[in-house]
Amino acid sequence: MRRDSEIHLYCLCMWHICFISDYGLANELVGSCKGVMASIAPQAPIIDITHAVPTFDVIRGAELLQHATRYMPKDAVYLAVVDPGDKTKRRALAAQVQSGAYFVGPDNGLLLPAAEALGGIRRAVHLTNQRYYVKPVSNSFHGRDIFSPVAAHLAAGTDFDDLGEEVEPTSMVSIDFPEAEREAGGGLVAEIIDIDHFGNARLAAMQDDLDLQYGVSLRVGIRDEVLDARYVEAFGASKAGDLVLVADSHWRLSLGVNKGNASRALLLEVGEKVRIEPSEKSFS
Amino acid sequence: MRRDSEIHLYCLCMWHICFISDYGLANELVGSCKGVMASIAPQAPIIDITHAVPTFDVIRGAELLQHATRYMPKDAVYLAVVDPGDKTKRRALAAQVQSGAYFVGPDNGLLLPAAEALGGIRRAVHLTNQRYYVKPVSNSFHGRDIFSPVAAHLAAGTDFDDLGEEVEPTSMVSIDFPEAEREAGGGLVAEIIDIDHFGNARLAAMQDDLDLQYGVSLRVGIRDEVLDARYVEAFGASKAGDLVLVADSHWRLSLGVNKGNASRALLLEVGEKVRIEPSEKSFS
Amino acid sequence: MRRDSEIHLYCLCMWHICFISDYGLANELVGSCKGVMASIAPQAPIIDITHAVPTFDVIRGAELLQHATRYMPKDAVYLAVVDPGDKTKRRALAAQVQSGAYFVGPDNGLLLPAAEALGGIRRAVHLTNQRYYVKPVSNSFHGRDIFSPVAAHLAAGTDFDDLGEEVEPTSMVSIDFPEAEREAGGGLVAEIIDIDHFGNARLAAMQDDLDLQYGVSLRVGIRDEVLDARYVEAFGASKAGDLVLVADSHWRLSLGVNKGNASRALLLEVGEKVRIEPSEKSFS
Repeated sequence: MRRDSEIHLYCLCMWHICFISDYGLANELVGSCKGVMASIAPQAPIIDITHAVPTFDVIRGAELLQHATRYMPKDAVYLAVVDPGDKTKRRALAAQVQSGAYFVGPDNGLLLPAAEALGGIRRAVHLTNQRYYVKPVSNSFHGRDIFSPVAAHLAAGTDFDDLGEEVEPTSMVSIDFPEAEREAGGGLVAEIIDIDHFGNARLAAMQDDLDLQYGVSLRVGIRDEVLDARYVEAFGASKAGDLVLVADSHWRLSLGVNKGNASRALLLEVGEKVRIEPSEKSFS
Repeated sequence: MRRDSEIHLYCLCMWHICFISDYGLANELVGSCKGVMASIAPQAPIIDITHAVPTFDVIRGAELLQHATRYMPKDAVYLAVVDPGDKTKRRALAAQVQSGAYFVGPDNGLLLPAAEALGGIRRAVHLTNQRYYVKPVSNSFHGRDIFSPVAAHLAAGTDFDDLGEEVEPTSMVSIDFPEAEREAGGGLVAEIIDIDHFGNARLAAMQDDLDLQYGVSLRVGIRDEVLDARYVEAFGASKAGDLVLVADSHWRLSLGVNKGNASRALLLEVGEKVRIEPSEKSFS
Repeated sequence: MRRDSEIHLYCLCMWHICFISDYGLANELVGSCKGVMASIAPQAPIIDITHAVPTFDVIRGAELLQHATRYMPKDAVYLAVVDPGDKTKRRALAAQVQSGAYFVGPDNGLLLPAAEALGGIRRAVHLTNQRYYVKPVSNSFHGRDIFSPVAAHLAAGTDFDDLGEEVEPTSMVSIDFPEAEREAGGGLVAEIIDIDHFGNARLAAMQDDLDLQYGVSLRVGIRDEVLDARYVEAFGASKAGDLVLVADSHWRLSLGVNKGNASRALLLEVGEKVRIEPSEKSFS
């Protein structure tokens, strides 16, 4: 037997802190935040979602955070810091969502898509109670001095209402994700939002945005070129060198070259629009 | 006194998940896997062996995993994912080895050298029981959707036999490590399998493959050149700029330049063969 | 209710291991150390301060470690490894400081500034008791074979005096941090010790070294040029493109360009000296 009742009890009452930022790992920023959290909530495990959000890219951070909520524990305090603006002007927030999870971070739109994925915000506070800050508070590193200690206090059971003044959830800053334009005939037009480390171009379009069956031949319009491609269930359903449209592990549509590098082959760049439509021609 | 009896009990029954992959840390892949595992086995600590296995390099991953088994806790579930092939064709496996440890990963040879280092495989299952998958299962990210949840269920005490259909250990795919050719006179010929971040060329040869004493002068043949070198116990036993053969922290033979960069100085590349033999000439 | 009394007890008696090194994350070095520690002290959480200390840079490591002590838990065993020298010649040490925390690492000056920040060394031992080593001990990786197991044994409650022979704290190797030269009139001359990932030049000078008010105009002398700048509380108090002097999150003075890259704009390099003095001219 591997576990006993005390441990089961321990597990039931454990809150995880799920941490995402654009701090990178080439410095001590993440380590300082973890030291602060361990000092306040030593029993709370910290899960690093990623610290490789592109610097200051709130939209990419929001998308990664939203997606991550599918895989994190239910009893989670999300600590999210991608914070390019003037720290003296934007609010520092904590929010509780309908699922029970908490979010802590800047009021710049980063938190909202994830909060909506977990049922929407139940209540939110402006983090004005300086009792929960690490002092002295620096001007540049609120992740360490404000957001981390608040996240840890929530994981340790601090009363949410004590963190500051209640704010109206509708007053929180929101962001617009780029979205696909669905076209008649099942195709769509979407922006490239990311090139992954295999060179696949991830589109601002989810698999649900496409009304086509696996195996169908496609015309892919990029700038003034039109290329032949195919919509496949997985790279394994194509030959080396084939241009394919495939859902990635976020169920996001992605243009890739089997065993190749689509972005290098086609000189794709983030921000470019791609048109995808079914073609008459068949490869199968 | 720092601990009490409950905690001691807790330690006794704790399984670690030891995680190795080629996912890198420049994205959210490792974070998603950890979220999945924490949801299932929140009490199981995760040790990152490394996520910097060169992409799709099963042999390097197998070597690193095998070596790591020397240093990991005995009660370990090894989660290993370097998985270049067609995920619809290779089996997903879990195995228990003679030492009691578990391995979870693709059936492509990655697991076997480590399993052998821990006494060989006692039993293995094909992970066909979809009850232990995270759903929906993506086509590209079995690390998150199949291997991570299974590893966590094992750490949480799930019955091994319930994971799927038993398979014959001998049916598992094996790989061939490159091996040194030992030569008469104590020398050897071996391939460069890795250049480390100090520029040292790590060889497909362990210290045991060499029948020479520390201090002996060597002739090192690389391509059509023959260079003078010395076999030393540590870099400290040579002068700056000396070419030396030294056992690295894996007890693997490695060619290095003291306070220099052997790979840049000699234009060494992975895959090249190196001949090492004792010379008459003496440096001491 | 989220916690019960057993867990509270558990928290009270938990020691954290705070780990800093120059090992990087592009290999398995950190993972091996963590495996060793988890085998000895499975209940001790490990906080990675950073593993991105520039290779072999003892002074930068010492500065980062010293700063980190502000944010780490009080019950901490600091494991610090930046160890460029001949491992057969320098001593391996453990020390306990006045705050109660422990330090483990090489006797090359790395530990001392942090130890002083925590009240100074109470007692120190040379790690001569091989019972606490991982065997066989490699010649190149004492982090894994000596320092990690000793740190874990301390976290698990091993008697400090049993680790080796007591040494006189004053016999420990010390290092000299570069220091600012304060000048009459409130200015200073200081070396650039680091370029951060935003291109800001971090100076060998703390905010306390400067006797000026926020908002004052400055003359900044770099090589044979003199530039106009301003001393600000935060980047938000300047315009895009402005050269500013600002305290970073270590309360260290830093030269930056608002929304730009000071090191690229001014071709700044680590080791260069910068002169800072108030100017008559006013920007406000």
